[in-house]
Amino acid sequence: MSSEKTTLPAHVVIREVGLRDGLQSIATILPTAKKLEWIRDAHAVGMREIEVGSFVPARLLPQLADTAELLAYAKTLPDLFASVLVPNLKGAERAIEGGADLLLVPLSASHVHSLANLRKTPDEVVQEVTRIRAARDAAGSKTLIEGGVGTAFGCTLQGRVEPVEVLRLMQALLDAGADRVSLADTVGYADPKMVRDLFEQALRIAGDRFWCGHFHDTRGLAMANVYAALELGVARFDASLAGIGGCPHAPGASGNASTEDLAYMLASMGLTTGIDMQGLLALRAKVAEWLSAETLHGTLWRAGLPKTFAAA
Amino acid sequence: MSSEKTTLPAHVVIREVGLRDGLQSIATILPTAKKLEWIRDAHAVGMREIEVGSFVPARLLPQLADTAELLAYAKTLPDLFASVLVPNLKGAERAIEGGADLLLVPLSASHVHSLANLRKTPDEVVQEVTRIRAARDAAGSKTLIEGGVGTAFGCTLQGRVEPVEVLRLMQALLDAGADRVSLADTVGYADPKMVRDLFEQALRIAGDRFWCGHFHDTRGLAMANVYAALELGVARFDASLAGIGGCPHAPGASGNASTEDLAYMLASMGLTTGIDMQGLLALRAKVAEWLSAETLHGTLWRAGLPKTFAAA
Repeated sequence: MSSEKTTLPAHVVIREVGLRDGLQSIATILPTAKKLEWIRDAHAVGMREIEVGSFVPARLLPQLADTAELLAYAKTLPDLFASVLVPNLKGAERAIEGGADLLLVPLSASHVHSLANLRKTPDEVVQEVTRIRAARDAAGSKTLIEGGVGTAFGCTLQGRVEPVEVLRLMQALLDAGADRVSLADTVGYADPKMVRDLFEQALRIAGDRFWCGHFHDTRGLAMANVYAALELGVARFDASLAGIGGCPHAPGASGNASTEDLAYMLASMGLTTGIDMQGLLALRAKVAEWLSAETLHGTLWRAGLPKTFAAA
Repeated sequence: MSSEKTTLPAHVVIREVGLRDGLQSIATILPTAKKLEWIRDAHAVGMREIEVGSFVPARLLPQLADTAELLAYAKTLPDLFASVLVPNLKGAERAIEGGADLLLVPLSASHVHSLANLRKTPDEVVQEVTRIRAARDAAGSKTLIEGGVGTAFGCTLQGRVEPVEVLRLMQALLDAGADRVSLADTVGYADPKMVRDLFEQALRIAGDRFWCGHFHDTRGLAMANVYAALELGVARFDASLAGIGGCPHAPGASGNASTEDLAYMLASMGLTTGIDMQGLLALRAKVAEWLSAETLHGTLWRAGLPKTFAAA
């Protein structure tokens, strides 16, 4: 039994990824006007980082075809840090052109998933990051490059993914010029002990360049996994309103950490996020209505905030 | 950022409370034969602690009227540790008569909830424990007495519950002769930091006499709360198959930690529980069919075990 206390970060950023990871995984195509309203409201309730979409060919993900317009709108909102996902140099060029604050290049540590999802090996993605970095620098752009190592805890297609391979690829991304790196449990295989072990090593490699933890609640452990990462000092997490999300090429990869449950946990713990919980729950209700044909996730919305909950 | 690792317990006991906390909170009255089947199967898949019911007047909780029969059956199963809940001396006498391995006396640290649920103040419950201890000793019985401090993180009726009051009552229970004490988040108000802070103090008071953590997933934090307690060395948790449970006198107190999600988290972390996960999921499916009219909880059952999951 140990009573050593680990230090929790005082301020935590939640990056809303529902507009990308969420909407890419469901059948409903949300009209651009609704997405703009979502971004506007998320900003209004205090969210300051949003992944607005993905620069992929519209024929592959028609539901994200309006990413450029969303990015342009996000850039008009004060203090909003706007990310986009890009699978390759072509997408990165659009992100840079659009003035994204950050572009996220996903890399899958599972070779099988990487080939299924990106049609590239992980090391080919690293090479693409080298090209993206060169393009970013040549453009004199301030867009940050994030290399996100996905299927970091295993893969529904490949099965086991070795931590040593995850860490090798993270180092390779940094060497290739990624400004930030992240770890993602794309398919919901992580547990808090796995998180503690892998994130500790990742933090040792990346230091201040470690950006974000991305967890799925597929097996109910997203909040526990976030807590394990918080204890190591990780202070930025992806989450999706109403827990929508998954991966089209990772069967059974349902349900991101839900933004509202995560924001509640953090606020309850006394860690500031800048998010107004009542406003966030109202936005959740609105988005749930828009997506009434979809299976939604999250738990807090049903019970509501505790009587003892004090706004941060 | 800290990299100190806390020690996790190697073996963790899950006490199944679905037959008591679960069934007392739902409308469906499960026939005795089904309950016996549930106990038999839970034992068969490796569960070794079950709270079989409650010795309360049958007119108050008709769904638990068969507790004596369930207890008698549980006692025939090898190595099964059978608990019952008792609200008072009369119930304790029945538990002792029936040879329960443990009787749990619930105490609510919220005075308002205590009066609503037990019609006694918390200190009157402490006095009752004194009488129960005397009766147990007079009977020469081996039945352990557990004092469970509920609404330990707040109350839907009263609101805030002071940690200092929770700890005072825990000490009082020990002084009154409780062999074991526990903490329960009856209404799902706890977060991992609250758990870390309160459990640390409780462990300092109770030492080896600290028995169990009881969490509700009302706001999605049960697994995170369990993990926070595990890090302090707590090695026994209540949980309910399919997450059924609540409290009739605590509005909105829905959903115990689900046994299957908890067993999965522990096994994934490499902590042994003795539970066969496939068997447990099969039992979950059976109970879900019996309770098809009820709202069930838990997440794992939908996605199933990871491809990488190895039986403990």
